[in-house]
Amino acid sequence: MRMIDIIGKKRDGESLTAEEIRHFVEAYTAGTIPDYQVSALLMAIIFQGMDRGEIVALTIAMAESGDMLDLSDILDYAVDKHSSGGVGDKTSLVVLPLVAAFGVPIAKMSGRGLGFTGGTLDKLESIAGFNVNLSEDQFRRVARDTGLVLAGQSKSLAPADGKLYALRDVTGTVASLPLMASSIMSKKLAAGANGIVLDVKLGQGAFMKTLDEARQLATIMVRIGVDAGRDMVALLSDMNQPLGVAVGNALEVAEAVKTLRGQGPADFEAHCVEVAAYMLRLAGQGKRWLDPRETSDDLRRMLRGGAALEHFRRMVEVQGGDVARIDDLGKLPQAQIREELRAAEDGYIGGIHADKVGLATLALGAGRATKAESIDHAVGIEVHANVGDAVARNDLLMTIHANGQDALRQARSLLDGAVVYSDTPVDPLPLFYGVIDGADV
Amino acid sequence: MRMIDIIGKKRDGESLTAEEIRHFVEAYTAGTIPDYQVSALLMAIIFQGMDRGEIVALTIAMAESGDMLDLSDILDYAVDKHSSGGVGDKTSLVVLPLVAAFGVPIAKMSGRGLGFTGGTLDKLESIAGFNVNLSEDQFRRVARDTGLVLAGQSKSLAPADGKLYALRDVTGTVASLPLMASSIMSKKLAAGANGIVLDVKLGQGAFMKTLDEARQLATIMVRIGVDAGRDMVALLSDMNQPLGVAVGNALEVAEAVKTLRGQGPADFEAHCVEVAAYMLRLAGQGKRWLDPRETSDDLRRMLRGGAALEHFRRMVEVQGGDVARIDDLGKLPQAQIREELRAAEDGYIGGIHADKVGLATLALGAGRATKAESIDHAVGIEVHANVGDAVARNDLLMTIHANGQDALRQARSLLDGAVVYSDTPVDPLPLFYGVIDGADV
Repeated sequence: MRMIDIIGKKRDGESLTAEEIRHFVEAYTAGTIPDYQVSALLMAIIFQGMDRGEIVALTIAMAESGDMLDLSDILDYAVDKHSSGGVGDKTSLVVLPLVAAFGVPIAKMSGRGLGFTGGTLDKLESIAGFNVNLSEDQFRRVARDTGLVLAGQSKSLAPADGKLYALRDVTGTVASLPLMASSIMSKKLAAGANGIVLDVKLGQGAFMKTLDEARQLATIMVRIGVDAGRDMVALLSDMNQPLGVAVGNALEVAEAVKTLRGQGPADFEAHCVEVAAYMLRLAGQGKRWLDPRETSDDLRRMLRGGAALEHFRRMVEVQGGDVARIDDLGKLPQAQIREELRAAEDGYIGGIHADKVGLATLALGAGRATKAESIDHAVGIEVHANVGDAVARNDLLMTIHANGQDALRQARSLLDGAVVYSDTPVDPLPLFYGVIDGADV
Repeated sequence: MRMIDIIGKKRDGESLTAEEIRHFVEAYTAGTIPDYQVSALLMAIIFQGMDRGEIVALTIAMAESGDMLDLSDILDYAVDKHSSGGVGDKTSLVVLPLVAAFGVPIAKMSGRGLGFTGGTLDKLESIAGFNVNLSEDQFRRVARDTGLVLAGQSKSLAPADGKLYALRDVTGTVASLPLMASSIMSKKLAAGANGIVLDVKLGQGAFMKTLDEARQLATIMVRIGVDAGRDMVALLSDMNQPLGVAVGNALEVAEAVKTLRGQGPADFEAHCVEVAAYMLRLAGQGKRWLDPRETSDDLRRMLRGGAALEHFRRMVEVQGGDVARIDDLGKLPQAQIREELRAAEDGYIGGIHADKVGLATLALGAGRATKAESIDHAVGIEVHANVGDAVARNDLLMTIHANGQDALRQARSLLDGAVVYSDTPVDPLPLFYGVIDGADV
């Protein structure tokens, strides 16, 4: 099997066989195929796409390029979630303890991610002492003992994906639905999940700008999971405006804790309840959680009752974090400067550009543009309004948390035009646009 | 200027600026852009193509990546030719001395080429002692003294093309008209030609299978030359059957010498006269060779008169070759085995698959599949029939010249089905399908 022939087939629009795909993934991981052949193949995939069989073969080959985590000795059923990433998306921090509190243990590996703010791991590191770098043994022990663990992704998980992603990043071959879907799903498959809830964001602050694109990506990912024998569901959720109020690592941890106390923003709580309900539905197939509506009520009750918070607190404690920072949110990292942005006019909020808020947060230092950058946990932006709100001139719209005047100036300038006003009433944005069920693909 | 942005523009179907193209060619030649980014760009070009301005900018940037030969001190007007390559194409061996005999000096650099038989340089090396490795000083001196020199291409000529071609060869990005055209033309521009006659082959034995493809490639090349300030003409010529009788290096030298004596095959002579007439038309713009028909008669007369042969002989002598091999063609390398192939039935020749003849010649050892291989000058195939000929069973169709029974067997098997018979009369194939004049593009 020659790589040049594999490139030629894809260039000419033919489907690659599972053997051809496995050969290229294995040889590339082993270093026996050069980058320049792989980048040519990736660019051909950009133009010719991949069919369902090819995508599944690619995902499984990437998953099997490293260790395949087997959690069956510690979990009856491993349920995982994945978000395609958005501005203010701290969903995992609430959903995982909530599901665990329902009696479904969670053992999740997470990535750091690039983008507007840090990933879930970066957010948790806002809590002094929290250790995400667990060995596999530690990871298993914590999961067994406490029913909830959240750790960094092992380097031996889907190494082909890491290598391919790095190459895509420098060769203009990121924007391909088959490559994006297989990259995400290869890590999920390798991480040992039996069931996966995908939270696919769409809108100005998401990678997918339109419902159609998001639905395509979600459908491909659900198909991969189903074909690989996993239970799958994907939610298509809004990312035109930031999710909840807080954007920035410590700010988001604080908001997650408030939500776990039953005091979170309504939109964010509703989002978390929906994601958790679908995770429970997957985990409890044939058991008591079959009706998502009923589950939702249970979940809200559980947030108010403090059981989910208790699980979160215990995870922080067991993973070395200082629980005092959770009990008193004022002890989380605080920025030196707080500056308020107020409404420029009377009217209705027609739009809050999530992408501008995200870029401003990045400029404040809350995220990384490249892997090498460090992040500032304290900085960020609170967005106090939602699309559809009626506002009067001078109402508080945002609070910027900054360390340094330069970053503040930059953030203010990036926020220019982020809020759009309307003279006439505006409908609130939906939280969700649809669900793609693994049974239907 | 970042390579990732250049890749992204081309991937998204935008045109690259001349500055962007020059940047990537210069940086790649200098080794500061990695292969994997260039191969991604090349694959994007396969799908998105390049417009006229981009192609010209690419060609000029590749030409200027090394030395630009200036022949103005030794030639009033440098006229060059290029053939896209075919089976039995020994045209340069006849045309160059013919044009020189007309008083238009020729100083040509040639490549070795991969393919069915060797390139012009390999053919000349059938003549014991012939030296194609001249320094630039030697090259200029021979041109000035004798009015005719044919040497190997200097490595400092268009080095970007060499590097890009090597990368295209292993990344499935050879088959692109813009890349093929700019590769050929960059070397022609760097070699200092004022006027260029392109002989673009089409048919079973050529890279371009159809008239439409050949016309497209030829038009792009003519446009490049015109936009770079050169006089251009392209001939679209037949390569469905081998050109002339001889295929194989020494066999082709012998046929060229016979043609220079006025005793060559009619089709090959006609082909050479046409190419030479166009070269003279370019070189003599506004002078005496304006009417190609009149020129053709002069050229045929010159072949019969021996003036062109005299120029060829002198070139062989000056470049160290043994002229005795030219004077007595029996002294050229001879293969050990000659085997005849005879007509299987009465009828008309409906086709002689040039590609099968070419592959059989390659199997005999007359060409190279990879750059590292050596070639056998003695072996080859003589094709005694032409499409349209009436034949009787047992008429001689081909003579195979082989060294070794294995190669002979392989060649015979590759020739299976090469000759197609017809019960009804068949029209001869045309030599030319059209002309693309630089004034019309």
